[in-house]
Amino acid sequence: MGTPATESIADQSKEVARIAAFSDGVFAIAITLLTLQLEVPRSGDLGQNLIDLEPNFLAFVISFLVIGSYWVAHHRLFAIVVRYDSRLIWLNLLALFFIVLLPFTTSLIAEHGDQPLGVIVYAASLAGAGFANTALAAYALVGRRLCPPSTSTAVVRYYLWRGTVVAIYFMASLLLLLAPTGTDLVMYSWLGIPVVEELVRLHLRTA
Amino acid sequence: MGTPATESIADQSKEVARIAAFSDGVFAIAITLLTLQLEVPRSGDLGQNLIDLEPNFLAFVISFLVIGSYWVAHHRLFAIVVRYDSRLIWLNLLALFFIVLLPFTTSLIAEHGDQPLGVIVYAASLAGAGFANTALAAYALVGRRLCPPSTSTAVVRYYLWRGTVVAIYFMASLLLLLAPTGTDLVMYSWLGIPVVEELVRLHLRTA
Amino acid sequence: MGTPATESIADQSKEVARIAAFSDGVFAIAITLLTLQLEVPRSGDLGQNLIDLEPNFLAFVISFLVIGSYWVAHHRLFAIVVRYDSRLIWLNLLALFFIVLLPFTTSLIAEHGDQPLGVIVYAASLAGAGFANTALAAYALVGRRLCPPSTSTAVVRYYLWRGTVVAIYFMASLLLLLAPTGTDLVMYSWLGIPVVEELVRLHLRTA
Amino acid sequence: MGTPATESIADQSKEVARIAAFSDGVFAIAITLLTLQLEVPRSGDLGQNLIDLEPNFLAFVISFLVIGSYWVAHHRLFAIVVRYDSRLIWLNLLALFFIVLLPFTTSLIAEHGDQPLGVIVYAASLAGAGFANTALAAYALVGRRLCPPSTSTAVVRYYLWRGTVVAIYFMASLLLLLAPTGTDLVMYSWLGIPVVEELVRLHLRTA
Repeated sequence: MGTPATESIADQSKEVARIAAFSDGVFAIAITLLTLQLEVPRSGDLGQNLIDLEPNFLAFVISFLVIGSYWVAHHRLFAIVVRYDSRLIWLNLLALFFIVLLPFTTSLIAEHGDQPLGVIVYAASLAGAGFANTALAAYALVGRRLCPPSTSTAVVRYYLWRGTVVAIYFMASLLLLLAPTGTDLVMYSWLGIPVVEELVRLHLRTA
Repeated sequence: MGTPATESIADQSKEVARIAAFSDGVFAIAITLLTLQLEVPRSGDLGQNLIDLEPNFLAFVISFLVIGSYWVAHHRLFAIVVRYDSRLIWLNLLALFFIVLLPFTTSLIAEHGDQPLGVIVYAASLAGAGFANTALAAYALVGRRLCPPSTSTAVVRYYLWRGTVVAIYFMASLLLLLAPTGTDLVMYSWLGIPVVEELVRLHLRTA
Repeated sequence: MGTPATESIADQSKEVARIAAFSDGVFAIAITLLTLQLEVPRSGDLGQNLIDLEPNFLAFVISFLVIGSYWVAHHRLFAIVVRYDSRLIWLNLLALFFIVLLPFTTSLIAEHGDQPLGVIVYAASLAGAGFANTALAAYALVGRRLCPPSTSTAVVRYYLWRGTVVAIYFMASLLLLLAPTGTDLVMYSWLGIPVVEELVRLHLRTA
Repeated sequence: MGTPATESIADQSKEVARIAAFSDGVFAIAITLLTLQLEVPRSGDLGQNLIDLEPNFLAFVISFLVIGSYWVAHHRLFAIVVRYDSRLIWLNLLALFFIVLLPFTTSLIAEHGDQPLGVIVYAASLAGAGFANTALAAYALVGRRLCPPSTSTAVVRYYLWRGTVVAIYFMASLLLLLAPTGTDLVMYSWLGIPVVEELVRLHLRTA
């Protein structure tokens, strides 16, 4: 949509801030719910029980880094978005959809990370998140649709590539399933996601 | 209530923003809690277990779209509200009441969506949400009570109709219970709720 | 504490807003977690199961109204607070402590509302909330410590009485335990809490 | 990173506020989830069941005070931060990592607080939080990297010491494990954390 003609550009910036704040809420809740799958049994040896939680803890750390990375990217994108319309809101909800899924997929790899299907579902949902973020950025930035005309081409290029590279990274990680080492290697490879993001950023010199 | 005479209109706009922020928090939490009902059993075949989650996943997607739609409408309404009083706050809490119920009713249709009573309770609570939103909009906008005098009639008409149409849509969907196809068709019909909203908006030309 | 001398009054208002926003987050989460105690068993007759949830649903509605009422009062109080110090923050955390307890005490009366001890614990925690709010208001407003000098006496008096009256209301409700009707009457009496608040407000003419 | 050259200092302050708001969300959710480990069994004597919850309630109060204290410190730090970069965001996420862990470690000491390993894990995670906060403050304030040049040395010194003292306090508390009194004394010592913080603040005269 456009927005009611009575709304000035200053008003739009307030509404864009509210979209960002709602998104922040979703990110903050999803990242905090990640620990709900960390449960120590009441009985048995505490030391052994904590050691047995290792896959759950690894899953928690991975998803914490992933949500953190996506939040950082979202934060940066909305620092330059100054207008909004109906499509931006729904593309943003699509991106949040995959974030909301993370407490579930985190439980999945915590409990079933030893099975290829578990890691495939996790990687697929995060590849979805990457593509959704690229779609969101492309809609907002290409043709400077919802950002200032002065936004540099380097900045736009960075946002378009970031989500795509992350999506490719998650899909490519699944090739490690072919290695004889099992699924652990795939999961450990995901810990590199913040590094990948920084590399994309540095390479595209947006800063 | 009115507000203390010491409060300027600028202050009111700050307070209206806080009402919106609190509402955003409720929307964000409710939408993120929707996945708590997605649980994969620890034992058994993972592939089969994921397939068995299909009704839970459908319930999640429906409620995600529903909360997203209601949030979009709330976001738009509070973009034009500039004053508040006690009644607005309580009508807003009434609208949030039905949002807060959604993680519960989502579990309900996830587990019992094959029974008419389950889909009736779900649809009834969302019809309630629709009517509460119409009441909220009517209170704020009719006579331009809490919005600028310059707010166009088209905008006011849109907000009055939106909640009502959504409520009617949910109630009408229950007629599909009479079809021999069972409750599935009812649930799939709810996926159309964002489309219904866009149609209402386009038809009433508020943008 | 005072605040660093480098901080201007405008900065303080930004920091007060952050205290309010953090509090809003706690209120929003607590009100949304209230439904976690609404659980429909997977087996058995759905209609009967829903009817059996009646005490849980009553507990949910009561706590929703209670959190709503406390949020409204908090919202109003922070509309006039313009400065902060260490004691205000800790008194505010004390008030939030009782709000955070509500999902727990709500489960308690949902499951054990038929026992006097259950309703006593619930009422006691909300009396605590009322007194904490009075202490918070007294600290901020008496002597206009953290509000504008122009704040009217009527406004100050309203905030001092509000929490106290609510606390007395919850404690007085426990006298109904002496009636032969059991604990139900006590719980239904709590539904009147928004009415009590409006009466306090109207009587003290703060609006 | 630096930030896109198109971004003015006013824009940065808006983005810093969003980092603070996201952090507030995490703090607010973590503090509200603390009660999820308070569960009264459906059967048995209610009075006895509530008494049996004493360790869970103690764990809740401790973690409420701890999160409250860390939030107060975070609130104060971000009152003077006016710029941000990629490292600040990731150091902030590191500090939040330990806050997000608290609902888990709180359950741990609630259920296993009678075992040294339980209290060691809890104290270690909070020492980690303390060090992360010192690292965050050091990065932002040393050389006035992300705060105004006029920020006083006393303020900087306070933020550097605060996290470190809290970390040392938690580690030192573990020495009480050597006492014959068992783990209870360690846990009760943690109730002193807000006092320790106030002493640090008063001693370093930042207010």
